[in-house]
Amino acid sequence: MPSLDPLFRPRSIAIIGASGRTHTIGNRIMQNLERYGFTGPVYPVNPRGGEILGKKVYTSILDVPGDVDMVHVIVRRKFVAATLEDCAAKGVKAAIVNTSGFKETGAQGAEMERQLVEIGRRTGMRLFGPNCQGVMNSDPAISLYSNFTFATLRPGHVSIVAQGGGVAEVINNYFGMRGIGQRMYASNGNACDISIPEIIEYYGQDEETRVIVIHIESFTDPAEFLRRVGPVAARKPVLALKSGTTPEGALAVSSHTGGMMEQDTTCQALFEKCGVLQFTKLSELCEAAEAFAAQPVPRGDRIGMVTNAGSPAIIVTDECVQAGLRVPPLADSSKAMLGEKLQAIASIANPIDMMATAGGEEFGVSLQALVDDPGLDAAVICFMTPFFVDTLGIAAAIERIAPTTDKTLIAVAMTNPDEEPAWRETIDRVRAAGVPVYYFPESAARVLSHMDRFRRLRDRPEFAPPELSVDKERATRVLDRAQCGPDGFLAPAQVSELLGAYGLPLVAERRAADWATLRQAAAELGYPVVLKAEAPTLVHKTDAGAVVLDLRDEDALHGAWSRLADQLHGTDQLVWLLQKMAAPGLEIIIGGAEAAGLGSLVMFGLGGVHVEVFEDVLFKLAPLDRAEAEAMLDGIAASALLRGVRGQPGVDRRALLDVLLRVSRLLADHPRILELDLNPVLAYPEGTAPCAVDARVKLQQD
Amino acid sequence: MPSLDPLFRPRSIAIIGASGRTHTIGNRIMQNLERYGFTGPVYPVNPRGGEILGKKVYTSILDVPGDVDMVHVIVRRKFVAATLEDCAAKGVKAAIVNTSGFKETGAQGAEMERQLVEIGRRTGMRLFGPNCQGVMNSDPAISLYSNFTFATLRPGHVSIVAQGGGVAEVINNYFGMRGIGQRMYASNGNACDISIPEIIEYYGQDEETRVIVIHIESFTDPAEFLRRVGPVAARKPVLALKSGTTPEGALAVSSHTGGMMEQDTTCQALFEKCGVLQFTKLSELCEAAEAFAAQPVPRGDRIGMVTNAGSPAIIVTDECVQAGLRVPPLADSSKAMLGEKLQAIASIANPIDMMATAGGEEFGVSLQALVDDPGLDAAVICFMTPFFVDTLGIAAAIERIAPTTDKTLIAVAMTNPDEEPAWRETIDRVRAAGVPVYYFPESAARVLSHMDRFRRLRDRPEFAPPELSVDKERATRVLDRAQCGPDGFLAPAQVSELLGAYGLPLVAERRAADWATLRQAAAELGYPVVLKAEAPTLVHKTDAGAVVLDLRDEDALHGAWSRLADQLHGTDQLVWLLQKMAAPGLEIIIGGAEAAGLGSLVMFGLGGVHVEVFEDVLFKLAPLDRAEAEAMLDGIAASALLRGVRGQPGVDRRALLDVLLRVSRLLADHPRILELDLNPVLAYPEGTAPCAVDARVKLQQD
Repeated sequence: MPSLDPLFRPRSIAIIGASGRTHTIGNRIMQNLERYGFTGPVYPVNPRGGEILGKKVYTSILDVPGDVDMVHVIVRRKFVAATLEDCAAKGVKAAIVNTSGFKETGAQGAEMERQLVEIGRRTGMRLFGPNCQGVMNSDPAISLYSNFTFATLRPGHVSIVAQGGGVAEVINNYFGMRGIGQRMYASNGNACDISIPEIIEYYGQDEETRVIVIHIESFTDPAEFLRRVGPVAARKPVLALKSGTTPEGALAVSSHTGGMMEQDTTCQALFEKCGVLQFTKLSELCEAAEAFAAQPVPRGDRIGMVTNAGSPAIIVTDECVQAGLRVPPLADSSKAMLGEKLQAIASIANPIDMMATAGGEEFGVSLQALVDDPGLDAAVICFMTPFFVDTLGIAAAIERIAPTTDKTLIAVAMTNPDEEPAWRETIDRVRAAGVPVYYFPESAARVLSHMDRFRRLRDRPEFAPPELSVDKERATRVLDRAQCGPDGFLAPAQVSELLGAYGLPLVAERRAADWATLRQAAAELGYPVVLKAEAPTLVHKTDAGAVVLDLRDEDALHGAWSRLADQLHGTDQLVWLLQKMAAPGLEIIIGGAEAAGLGSLVMFGLGGVHVEVFEDVLFKLAPLDRAEAEAMLDGIAASALLRGVRGQPGVDRRALLDVLLRVSRLLADHPRILELDLNPVLAYPEGTAPCAVDARVKLQQD
Repeated sequence: MPSLDPLFRPRSIAIIGASGRTHTIGNRIMQNLERYGFTGPVYPVNPRGGEILGKKVYTSILDVPGDVDMVHVIVRRKFVAATLEDCAAKGVKAAIVNTSGFKETGAQGAEMERQLVEIGRRTGMRLFGPNCQGVMNSDPAISLYSNFTFATLRPGHVSIVAQGGGVAEVINNYFGMRGIGQRMYASNGNACDISIPEIIEYYGQDEETRVIVIHIESFTDPAEFLRRVGPVAARKPVLALKSGTTPEGALAVSSHTGGMMEQDTTCQALFEKCGVLQFTKLSELCEAAEAFAAQPVPRGDRIGMVTNAGSPAIIVTDECVQAGLRVPPLADSSKAMLGEKLQAIASIANPIDMMATAGGEEFGVSLQALVDDPGLDAAVICFMTPFFVDTLGIAAAIERIAPTTDKTLIAVAMTNPDEEPAWRETIDRVRAAGVPVYYFPESAARVLSHMDRFRRLRDRPEFAPPELSVDKERATRVLDRAQCGPDGFLAPAQVSELLGAYGLPLVAERRAADWATLRQAAAELGYPVVLKAEAPTLVHKTDAGAVVLDLRDEDALHGAWSRLADQLHGTDQLVWLLQKMAAPGLEIIIGGAEAAGLGSLVMFGLGGVHVEVFEDVLFKLAPLDRAEAEAMLDGIAASALLRGVRGQPGVDRRALLDVLLRVSRLLADHPRILELDLNPVLAYPEGTAPCAVDARVKLQQD
């Protein structure tokens, strides 16, 4: 695995297209490198020669005296390829191509971009961009601001990579403005060679990076993302925002990056499989990253609070509880200690609600109680800055206690630091003590809820492929001799065989071509039965009226058969399907669909209105393990119905899980299956196996 | 209606308990009044006499030479009453009692607070507090900072009133910090006399107040809130956050409807009836208030955008669409104009996605296009501040166009104003042009969605009591001679009569005491029938197994009757209820429950799992008008089922609406009804009247 060190830790840089004119990219990058004190030599290159910012300008990269690890290429589009050839000849290891006008502009640009990729492949020089900003690394040993933008850079623990240059800067700048600092940053534009997953993998290896923030608009290679990002996310928090999730947004993405429309569902399933923490709001992502960078992830979901103002703590409580966190009562030992040490206290409970006059001493005692309380995993410190309180004392209390605990501490400072220097100092000192500080009370609850989400994701069991006896060879044989209709749907008899090979129970059935065979088949199955007409042209049998349910005796069967036979007279390849009428059960839908580049998605939900009206279905990448399948059963809104409500018994969960696992294995084993639908699967109480009443399978056509 | 002018526009103020020691409330209020330049005289009062901040201290309020409109009372608790008597004698019109230790501390404090209220009532002097902060008014004619807190005050258009002092300051300070300014502010602590609704009503009369922000923890008098705030909210936006969700009221645990009615539900219904815009996040409330203070409410939900960075505008687009706003294509005329005037533009669509190099001219052309586009109601201007762009040009374009349009303009400035003075100036100028400026792109979409919510609330039809022929007198007679079980449930036969008086269709039924009468009754109703056993001890009949459905003939009825008669042998006051077996229909639940101080809430939802598992029910205050009832049918998550799905016909909406309206009228007309449950009401396709199959009514016991 080649390192991205030449990009993020170059020993020397050349700026090809450096300029003496301010307000040019080639000048701004020179300025930024100088302002932030890049630790290696910077060589301006420009055919005009001369001096820029006191540095000698070389007329060609080939004239630069020393070794050059990394270059910026800011020449006109038509000169980029030749410049890169020179760079390669010079032994440059990585090139940031800032120049735009490539893939994002259409076919001609895309062709020129392919030439750059070819140069990179041939020479081993890594390419970043084109049509991009650049990179940053705040490591004081490097101090790299190889970018033409404006976000303030200070050493920190958040590393950022973003597809959209604008969003990249919004994120980057947030940390710059808040004085929290960043570790590394990259916005790689068209990403013709070095990819976002590769950068995430690099950040993953960096010890000082405690949290990785990513912004994605579309995936070029989801499988690469899964492969590279999964192992990183298992070790450290990877926070992601995917934009372009609405059709209108996706349209804007496509017009903006030339990228493809993405299925939001696939993205969610991918992030979940990787263990990436997905966000829907950019502001929440930034706030949460701030906490992840500064504090340990809480060991549990029990939140304690101390405040010198009651009403904001009520908001934190409301928000915590709504987010599924707990705000438990204090331990008796904590109450006893507080009762002894705090006299002027208003309420010894959780939140600990102190008078507005409470200062450093009271905050110290209360925070210590929260930190020592065995029933708490995290503590929120809320404070206003009443003019009669020495707020620096509050900071001092936090400074004293924070280093002694591995519980998560979050502060809410509801003040305007511009009004009073001591208040700014208070906030700065709390932050410097490693405790993130927010303005709105709800933010504290929100970041804790995101940390809790991460904890659950991180601590979930490792993927454990379930033991299932399936006959993969038999299924392969069915697929090898598949007979498909014009739409690619597998012939029904073969569907039964395919499902049978994976132990998937279809309701008992027989096929017949004429009345005599049909009558005999009904006798074998036993009444009541269901009669269906099958033909390649009848995909949705119900729509065609070609299904008659609950035929209770031979007379009824004959009547239904005669009517259908008349109605469908002349239909090509007509076959009669007879099924045992299934007992009423809970209608489940289990399905699968191809997920481009990622194999298949499995779908699970309740049938009928639950899927069609409420869209209450979940998707995960196949194959599933038992824990994932359980999570699907528990994750749908209607999951209570599976467990039983209103005196109705629940369904046999084990048996239903087994069906779901087998479907997911079938999809994973046979990528030729584009779509699969078991709809409905009827689920029954404990002890009765579920059975699929109807099944459709669509195959990739060669 | 007495005015609160003496409180918010006093001509003179005395500070009783003024102090020379900094870090006391009595000193801080003096300082704040001076710092903000209160336009009238301020008289310090303290028995010690002397001078404070260069002002002569009077030893008693009675010694103050001139008239005193308003006082702060900051004396010890035991002296407050006597001080107030002196103030009244002096002719003081309003007193802010900052002193704490009253109702909030228990019974003794509550008693002392009652004495204060008595003094106020007797003398006509209005009281604010006790245990409170104070008030502010930024009107330059007054410049009143009669408060001991620290939020910066500048003239603005947001007026704030908050129950929680801490949250009050978080809100107040937000506007102070952001340089947006406030108009008036009040945090009235225990609110023993002047109430939050009264303050809202006062703000409503103030022309310069464009938006009112309120924070509520609990309602002391919801009816006062409804009466005073409703008319205000019909004219100007009232934005509210309710925190602290404590269940309140003693609704019977046994009752299904009652169990779900918590104070939160009542609060939502109250806000909705008033037209108050409820928020769940304090930060969103503040952001939205900023926009309401600065910009007109959009006339519709169609949003246009211009940006110099693609990816943030995608986020705005996603957020708008998810919030139910529309991001329509530009009009052809706009496209033509842009195509002509903008050459270097990347994408002439919505969002208009310009190159990063786009400056004032391009922004001007694009914004003009959005403002002129007949298909748009609001425009979002997103901009980064690339160093090569004169961002002041962007500000100039906004300054030029903003005054010419009545469309809503919102800006997103994704920059760090501390990095470059021109960027701060850009933001300040855009804000001064009346266009609110946010940092995160999603904020723009969010405030627009809240404005759209307000538009729909404001533009809903005025309450129009529907014409319903009901026999109120007959219902009153039923209630007057009501026979209730020990739990307060009305006897079933009387329930039928009560409902009948309001034209509410119960399924046809007969009651019988013995087999002979039962047999005769069945013959009259016609088979199939349902047999139910009724007795005061059998509230939930189904639970008791005392319901047998679908008895198809006399034999079946006799069998069921014999079995039940055996089973319930010895049950007190046992009666047999025979109902016509209703045809299967869509199960609806319609109910009602007392809402303390507000009459009754009506509940509507689908029965079965929809209510019990998904809690998909809505509540509104009774009585309803037709539009409100419609909104309930449309507002439940399952509303599609009412319209018909999967080839099933919908229900007769007109008939169902009629039932809902009649129930709401019954509840409103007869406040003695504590709970009412029609569960289920079976609804049928067009042309068939719905009918209630079971009904329970619980009455207030004298």
